[in-house]
Amino acid sequence: MPRFALKIEYDGRPFAGWQAQADHPSVQGAVESALARLDRGFAAGARIAAAGRTDAGVHATAQVAHGDLARDWDPFRLAEALNFHLKPAPVAVLAAARVDAQFHARFSATERRYLFRLLARRAPATHDRGLVWQVPHPLDAGAMRRAAAHLVGRHDFTTFRSAMCQSASPVKTLDAIRIEEIAVPQGQEFRFHLRARSFLHNQVRSIVGTLERVGAGSWAPERVASALAARDRAQCGPVCPPHGLYLCGVDYPRDPFGG
Amino acid sequence: MPRFALKIEYDGRPFAGWQAQADHPSVQGAVESALARLDRGFAAGARIAAAGRTDAGVHATAQVAHGDLARDWDPFRLAEALNFHLKPAPVAVLAAARVDAQFHARFSATERRYLFRLLARRAPATHDRGLVWQVPHPLDAGAMRRAAAHLVGRHDFTTFRSAMCQSASPVKTLDAIRIEEIAVPQGQEFRFHLRARSFLHNQVRSIVGTLERVGAGSWAPERVASALAARDRAQCGPVCPPHGLYLCGVDYPRDPFGG
Repeated sequence: MPRFALKIEYDGRPFAGWQAQADHPSVQGAVESALARLDRGFAAGARIAAAGRTDAGVHATAQVAHGDLARDWDPFRLAEALNFHLKPAPVAVLAAARVDAQFHARFSATERRYLFRLLARRAPATHDRGLVWQVPHPLDAGAMRRAAAHLVGRHDFTTFRSAMCQSASPVKTLDAIRIEEIAVPQGQEFRFHLRARSFLHNQVRSIVGTLERVGAGSWAPERVASALAARDRAQCGPVCPPHGLYLCGVDYPRDPFGG
Repeated sequence: MPRFALKIEYDGRPFAGWQAQADHPSVQGAVESALARLDRGFAAGARIAAAGRTDAGVHATAQVAHGDLARDWDPFRLAEALNFHLKPAPVAVLAAARVDAQFHARFSATERRYLFRLLARRAPATHDRGLVWQVPHPLDAGAMRRAAAHLVGRHDFTTFRSAMCQSASPVKTLDAIRIEEIAVPQGQEFRFHLRARSFLHNQVRSIVGTLERVGAGSWAPERVASALAARDRAQCGPVCPPHGLYLCGVDYPRDPFGG
């Protein structure tokens, strides 16, 4: 059966997360339902697998998933047909590609990129409600950048890992954290760009929640270094809410979408 | 009675437009209801006036309105109190300022700036649904810029004016149209930035709808010059939908918000 990779964008607001669940709308469920309209294997219960199983409220601009179809579709037609059947869910297949049977969206990935959007202003968000995390106070980008530098590299990230994390090891290599500051009317937006081969559960939200404390002046930047060294979940700052988080890129040894 | 100016951001999706109407939610109605919670004049039916009476589905990042309050509020406290009472409507008061009795949000304005967001890609919008106008084909920015150049300056804009326009004259000076091109996943976003002292009803949407035809290759750029010269509404391209349009700036001889 031919294997296809899909590049998927979605608005996480109406979903209980990526992963299919009984009685809750999921992104995986939406894509599998669209596939079931086209493909007898999915009509009979075949499943797709994703590079990152995003939590409830988390968004994606470039999630990657794969599945085995009964028919050898033209990739462009497959993306078009899926987008037709996905309506009106806020999920879009940006690209489809034929991949070989060894390709696995999760296990073949060599890099994942996340974006976290944090709006710092008093007046409430309007257009971006549910698309950013908002705090009412200004934040110090320099202090957050100094603190973030302590986290880059290979570390035991036990402090920044959910108790529910199923990863075999808490040791991960965080390749980069870049903090972009954008002027918005009456406030600032901070965009945190994080890159790693893989992340622990809640790692990005634990890191951003902690860096926000530094930006607000509650934590000295060096406290992030000692919290990391403590390897103690209790030393983490508050985990921030999911709705500023976006999975925005997944790399493979060879780009299946030919970019 | 002290007069206040308000700078207001809103998501136009749930509203029938700026202007208060019986039986339809309006931005003006939302702001006046919040004012009525704070002020006996508004509780008794006082009204606010805005720089631009945006249509149904049109957004603002910096609408300006003014009203006369019974009490001499601290402007910061007024903005905070209004934002509290505006919840959960997607309307935010970004700033409030005390202005003199001669200030009029509409008649004192010396410049208005609009943004129009046009997404060109096949896969449907997700996060930006209702915040952009989408077309499924690529557009030629160079051709649209050449066509737009014909519209800049002082002209009779009868061709680009709604039949319902109440302006005394169709002659307006369009100070600038800048077309920004932004790469987005699997497509392009075009941002049209227009500046003028004032606009005719549907002028921006008539212009962008016509320029889209040029970008798509259906119209030669020069056809825009002859359509303008014809002073004939029937020569206009299709008027584009409202939901990519944002009122994003209003200037006064002296900035009431002290910017």
